[in-house]
Amino acid sequence: MSDSTKNKMWGGRFDSAPSDIMTHINASIDIDQRLWRQDIAGSKAHCQMLIKQSIISKEDGQKILDGLLQIEKEIEDGVFEFKASLEDIHMNIESRLKEIIGDSAGKLHTARSRNDQVATDFRLWVREACDDIISNIESFQVVLEKLSNIHKNSIMPGFTHLQVAQPVTLAMHLGAYSQMLARDKRRFEDCQKRLNECPLGACALSGTGFPIDRHYTAELLGFDKPMTNTMDAVSARDFANEFLFDCAQCGLHLSRLAEEIILWSTPQFGFVTLADQWSTGSSIMPQKKNPDAAELVRAKTGRLNGNLIQLMTVMKALPLTYNKDMQEDKQGVFESFDTICLCLDAMKGMLDTANFRLDKMKSATLDGYATATEIADWLVRNLNMPFRDAHHVTGRIVKMAESKNCRLDELSLTDMQGVEPRITNDIYNALDPDKAIQSRLKKP
Amino acid sequence: MSDSTKNKMWGGRFDSAPSDIMTHINASIDIDQRLWRQDIAGSKAHCQMLIKQSIISKEDGQKILDGLLQIEKEIEDGVFEFKASLEDIHMNIESRLKEIIGDSAGKLHTARSRNDQVATDFRLWVREACDDIISNIESFQVVLEKLSNIHKNSIMPGFTHLQVAQPVTLAMHLGAYSQMLARDKRRFEDCQKRLNECPLGACALSGTGFPIDRHYTAELLGFDKPMTNTMDAVSARDFANEFLFDCAQCGLHLSRLAEEIILWSTPQFGFVTLADQWSTGSSIMPQKKNPDAAELVRAKTGRLNGNLIQLMTVMKALPLTYNKDMQEDKQGVFESFDTICLCLDAMKGMLDTANFRLDKMKSATLDGYATATEIADWLVRNLNMPFRDAHHVTGRIVKMAESKNCRLDELSLTDMQGVEPRITNDIYNALDPDKAIQSRLKKP
Amino acid sequence: MSDSTKNKMWGGRFDSAPSDIMTHINASIDIDQRLWRQDIAGSKAHCQMLIKQSIISKEDGQKILDGLLQIEKEIEDGVFEFKASLEDIHMNIESRLKEIIGDSAGKLHTARSRNDQVATDFRLWVREACDDIISNIESFQVVLEKLSNIHKNSIMPGFTHLQVAQPVTLAMHLGAYSQMLARDKRRFEDCQKRLNECPLGACALSGTGFPIDRHYTAELLGFDKPMTNTMDAVSARDFANEFLFDCAQCGLHLSRLAEEIILWSTPQFGFVTLADQWSTGSSIMPQKKNPDAAELVRAKTGRLNGNLIQLMTVMKALPLTYNKDMQEDKQGVFESFDTICLCLDAMKGMLDTANFRLDKMKSATLDGYATATEIADWLVRNLNMPFRDAHHVTGRIVKMAESKNCRLDELSLTDMQGVEPRITNDIYNALDPDKAIQSRLKKP
Amino acid sequence: MSDSTKNKMWGGRFDSAPSDIMTHINASIDIDQRLWRQDIAGSKAHCQMLIKQSIISKEDGQKILDGLLQIEKEIEDGVFEFKASLEDIHMNIESRLKEIIGDSAGKLHTARSRNDQVATDFRLWVREACDDIISNIESFQVVLEKLSNIHKNSIMPGFTHLQVAQPVTLAMHLGAYSQMLARDKRRFEDCQKRLNECPLGACALSGTGFPIDRHYTAELLGFDKPMTNTMDAVSARDFANEFLFDCAQCGLHLSRLAEEIILWSTPQFGFVTLADQWSTGSSIMPQKKNPDAAELVRAKTGRLNGNLIQLMTVMKALPLTYNKDMQEDKQGVFESFDTICLCLDAMKGMLDTANFRLDKMKSATLDGYATATEIADWLVRNLNMPFRDAHHVTGRIVKMAESKNCRLDELSLTDMQGVEPRITNDIYNALDPDKAIQSRLKKP
Repeated sequence: MSDSTKNKMWGGRFDSAPSDIMTHINASIDIDQRLWRQDIAGSKAHCQMLIKQSIISKEDGQKILDGLLQIEKEIEDGVFEFKASLEDIHMNIESRLKEIIGDSAGKLHTARSRNDQVATDFRLWVREACDDIISNIESFQVVLEKLSNIHKNSIMPGFTHLQVAQPVTLAMHLGAYSQMLARDKRRFEDCQKRLNECPLGACALSGTGFPIDRHYTAELLGFDKPMTNTMDAVSARDFANEFLFDCAQCGLHLSRLAEEIILWSTPQFGFVTLADQWSTGSSIMPQKKNPDAAELVRAKTGRLNGNLIQLMTVMKALPLTYNKDMQEDKQGVFESFDTICLCLDAMKGMLDTANFRLDKMKSATLDGYATATEIADWLVRNLNMPFRDAHHVTGRIVKMAESKNCRLDELSLTDMQGVEPRITNDIYNALDPDKAIQSRLKKP
Repeated sequence: MSDSTKNKMWGGRFDSAPSDIMTHINASIDIDQRLWRQDIAGSKAHCQMLIKQSIISKEDGQKILDGLLQIEKEIEDGVFEFKASLEDIHMNIESRLKEIIGDSAGKLHTARSRNDQVATDFRLWVREACDDIISNIESFQVVLEKLSNIHKNSIMPGFTHLQVAQPVTLAMHLGAYSQMLARDKRRFEDCQKRLNECPLGACALSGTGFPIDRHYTAELLGFDKPMTNTMDAVSARDFANEFLFDCAQCGLHLSRLAEEIILWSTPQFGFVTLADQWSTGSSIMPQKKNPDAAELVRAKTGRLNGNLIQLMTVMKALPLTYNKDMQEDKQGVFESFDTICLCLDAMKGMLDTANFRLDKMKSATLDGYATATEIADWLVRNLNMPFRDAHHVTGRIVKMAESKNCRLDELSLTDMQGVEPRITNDIYNALDPDKAIQSRLKKP
Repeated sequence: MSDSTKNKMWGGRFDSAPSDIMTHINASIDIDQRLWRQDIAGSKAHCQMLIKQSIISKEDGQKILDGLLQIEKEIEDGVFEFKASLEDIHMNIESRLKEIIGDSAGKLHTARSRNDQVATDFRLWVREACDDIISNIESFQVVLEKLSNIHKNSIMPGFTHLQVAQPVTLAMHLGAYSQMLARDKRRFEDCQKRLNECPLGACALSGTGFPIDRHYTAELLGFDKPMTNTMDAVSARDFANEFLFDCAQCGLHLSRLAEEIILWSTPQFGFVTLADQWSTGSSIMPQKKNPDAAELVRAKTGRLNGNLIQLMTVMKALPLTYNKDMQEDKQGVFESFDTICLCLDAMKGMLDTANFRLDKMKSATLDGYATATEIADWLVRNLNMPFRDAHHVTGRIVKMAESKNCRLDELSLTDMQGVEPRITNDIYNALDPDKAIQSRLKKP
Repeated sequence: MSDSTKNKMWGGRFDSAPSDIMTHINASIDIDQRLWRQDIAGSKAHCQMLIKQSIISKEDGQKILDGLLQIEKEIEDGVFEFKASLEDIHMNIESRLKEIIGDSAGKLHTARSRNDQVATDFRLWVREACDDIISNIESFQVVLEKLSNIHKNSIMPGFTHLQVAQPVTLAMHLGAYSQMLARDKRRFEDCQKRLNECPLGACALSGTGFPIDRHYTAELLGFDKPMTNTMDAVSARDFANEFLFDCAQCGLHLSRLAEEIILWSTPQFGFVTLADQWSTGSSIMPQKKNPDAAELVRAKTGRLNGNLIQLMTVMKALPLTYNKDMQEDKQGVFESFDTICLCLDAMKGMLDTANFRLDKMKSATLDGYATATEIADWLVRNLNMPFRDAHHVTGRIVKMAESKNCRLDELSLTDMQGVEPRITNDIYNALDPDKAIQSRLKKP
């Protein structure tokens, strides 16, 4: 910023302009220009309130509103020139306003400070970001539900410890993720609800002597109410931390699904073949078909966790009220928002076009002794054995199948009776994974 | 665990017992014994359901319930012996149950697995932990409100960038923290509400063929309903991550207050003197009176952030359903709970007994030119100057006071008129911090 | 601590004793008692120096040395009673010394403060911890090398993106981890070297007026030299952060190997069967054989990362010199040390007893088209094709094998000539993974 | 990327091109274009080796070298057009090479893969980054040393717990930071040394059958030697983690100094006045002079910690060898590098132009009872009191000064003798901070 601009903004107390490095470390316009729409919306509401309260004249007010409208159009049309020398989005817009309407522009800042202004802009932005993410989650859930409907009876092995445990269906497996995403969605809703209070009117930190109407600006901007405490209004960033956590948690859930897609795409599992448009090849190995998008979704959890810890670290032990440290609040929030939206989109596209290999899933279920628990349950129900004993008997039957290198349903009745003589032919019903699943699905 | 015990639990498939290092890395009883009350409550509810559904006989059921009651008493009386060899809390209790009631004990595990059992126990524990923290927050808020009532008119400098900005009151300052804590409290309430679904009946991962009644156990344990998806029921730990975040965020807020207590306790600020019972001395410097508790609260944010990142890292990319990795979920949760409770208690005690030095606060307000904005506002209101110009004029007045090494209200009218001739005597009203505050407090 | 003890330590300036919560948040003896050996060693060296410099009399000095020896024996014999009321390890030992030798005990603290004392103890402890970890790494490397020697010619698929890429040997695969561990080891050596300067003599922060000899104590304790700047001596904890990072990085490497053990243990991969003593079963599914230890090693990276971020957070923005926050430095360091030692031991035991299924590895290599790159290389070498074109031709050959559901070496020459007529029978040499590997292993 | 380009690169196995979202999540050119200089250097060395080994003809080789030279110039001149459609820096350069020299371009990729190529580029980049940071550290140290020389006798209070502890000099205080930075520098040197091995020749993961000379490329690129294990060569990112930690630790040290600058700039401390070019004003409060640059340096520790935890999270549990997750390795490294360089520059500029208020520092020393330890030491030396007793006596003297609201050297001898009758007039020598410091500075 030129000396004279700076002197204009900070008043007559400064003799020299900031050093280049100072300007560089201080400028935030590269990042916060993304707040332009919120900044103009906030300024409009503030201006309308100033008019209504006769703090500025109607004439000045109308000029300001017209100027803001013009700036909005310029930015939308891509003809607005953002200047690093003007440091941040607020000064870029204010400075342009002055070019357009002259001295009246200066009145817009009456009864306002950059501290309440930026807090308002940022809350507006995060509020909208929650809407976008919720909508992305919902459209991914639509795909998951579609697939669940298709695969209600698609048998696959359920895993614990990545060992085959019991038969499940692909619908159950994908349904688990649908539930996780439902909770993620509710977390964003809670975050949105909690942040929806308006900082405007807090000014620098302690409000203003001008006869403002904070309820009016709050209402114009769709906030539930003005923030109660003005010092809190300009100091609080817990809403941003909460948003970052919600993104990181949602990303964690996606990383689990991504890991499974990667595993299932290996020749060893072979449960899924990704569509070509969701795979990449290798520059050196012509046979490769790599699940790059899933790997990247898995990796993005690093960035999401990193952004969370970044702002948690920044806010540690900051005294009230505004400190310049808090300028570091936006980069991570913007980036986590972009990242989680991209990850949700990618997982949706990948799943929607994936080719599930039901034959491989079914045979992995049978090969993996997944119905062993059914034997144990059969023993409890039919022979009234305590579960622990039934578990022990079944362990021996599994060991027998292993040593014979066969599936459980390939053991003869005589073999099984060698372990527990009271076993009858009825046990083969328990060894059919489709029947096993059906008996469970009747539960709530 | 002895070979025979292990064989008992895992059935006949294992030829040799775990190595010592394996036992060591695997055992969790040191940590999860803290779940004993929840584990017994869960077992009771499960047993009652098994009886009601005639899955086990009333006789067996009653024996189990009596046995659990006795174990509960033994633990409460401190006579129960926890054994590392029995690995975890579930096996410790189950093994003792067998000693007390014999073979019927084995029936308790019908239609249940350690996977749904531990998920249930852990949700019950976190649900209660939220209650405790909420109550700790509330009792700290009582102290803050008491102090706010006392200090409604206690003038102090409000800071931005740790520079004196404008006059505020101590009530406003403490009130900001009350608001932050109110949001922290709501976060714990949301977390509690979201986790309140019952995993029981999910068994290992896919439910059970036994005719269980999941609604009944859910109801007995105070859950809103059974979890919808059984694989989700045993795989989900987002409730623990959310709890850890809520603790970390609350800890962050306390770290800000702690930082201020530390600053205010310095001879340079001198705004507060901590009570002797909340200070420590030095083993070498006899004049020292250190705000150790505040420093420790500030530092604890490290542990709270660390615990959050710990579980977020553990859960990254874990395939469904249960993986042993998830055993690492409890240490951090227990520790964060203890930490945040201790920090809330310490801050409450410290504040409640602190001696605020109102004289020092008042004089710091005047010395710091805190009423400069009042001059600018006066110029806007009385001379109809655009704010930016008023700001510039005020900057020059402040510079004059600096060079004369005096307070703003010690400048003569002539001095001020030298900068802006239209200034009148009325401006001295604006320079009184009490009046400045009063004009602001009338705002909503 | 009783009032009188506290008054004794902090002098006559305090009127009342700490509150219970204060005592609770302040006490560190549960954690720092682990420094007892270093604390006594440090005190002995300090005492010898005080004698040598005639700052205390030989008689007093000898009494102190004898008393310390007795305390050392008491702790080793498990008869020393650590008291929470005495807050930390230093006061516990000093207080016991006074009981044993009376008033001369007070002279030990001449020209010393708890600040330089604890910094010295902690550096001594971390220095030793590095030795222990290095030795654990080395003994794990011995196992890796043993296995590499055995498996020099054991063909297995090398993966990228978890897709089969090219044939490698198990020796190469395990050798990669040996290299990673070699770098981890060097990091601990660097850490150890860097921290090896002695804080003693810095006293509280600014040294002492007593005629001490800092070089003498440094030498007695095996330090390279006294720390240069006394304020740095008591303020620095970068050595602890570096140690925590080194542990976390080593844990990361182990988490990668652990992940592979888990993958290889699945029925789908089947590359390895863990020994019974390194597996666990399931309380409900009798067929399970779970790689719990590997899962726990994978999970421990959470704790190691958490501890790193914990102390990095604590130290953020701490002004010089000692602040009570720094008391939070030891828990994570102790825990990360225990964790990394346990993980190294566990991986060593697991690998050493694992049964590698060479047949499965070999057939996975062939089934996965791992030699496709060999075809491309053959085309480049024999037909002088640009690599990019050869890659393209090979891609079409792989696609043909896929559609015929056969291995590459099962395609007929006619088939391959259909894609590129110049291919000759010699190409089958390139499709033998053993030959492929051999041609590569001759490289440096 | 167009279908045909992609098909060219990945061979004939793909039927359809990537989806838009896939392209978006996959592309890295925005970030990795920063590797251009290293990528060209690596390609040149690889090409020279291919010529020397007669793997490609001299004619082809010379064309490639000329083409690379032209590309280098194009990028330097800013006329090279980076295309997102070409995904990454490697394909951008390779594709341009083909435009310039035609089909010979394809031969450059002989005996190389993107996996060893990117690992080489990245190591070269980090190696240089270490040099730059080291040089920035050194030039900041020059400023610190200059200031230390000027302020050898500038008395100021040394703090512990942010309470005045003992007199120190500004030279000692700044010297502490010089020591911290010296260790930071050595950490970067160690990192640089450890990473200096060449991945080239590892190709995709297992080397190549071509008769390459890895020692020759290693030497041309200034590496100590080729990496020993080819799978490690393409899988390892511990060098990046180590670099990120070293940046974070250096940032932590700067955050401590930044915190002190912020404290010292408050009107309450008043120890320093920042130059106008390192301060900012307020848009609303004309009296403000804010230490924004120091606040931003303090805050940047958040980003540095976040980047460290980001990559540590990404690398957790990644199986060998290359996984697409690892594409997320560069953003944080580039950003941490820029951040730490900027912070070092900013602190250097701020300190170099700061106006230290020696009068304020001196009087804060006296007002804060900083010489109390001197009294205690006087009592030990002159009255042969055990230190603990001397400490107690001094505590009572301090309390007396407090109640009289005077400095220690303003107490009368009679006053002090009232506490301890043996005190003589000589004690006033101990109460002079200059003398206190001198007595300490004679120590090593």
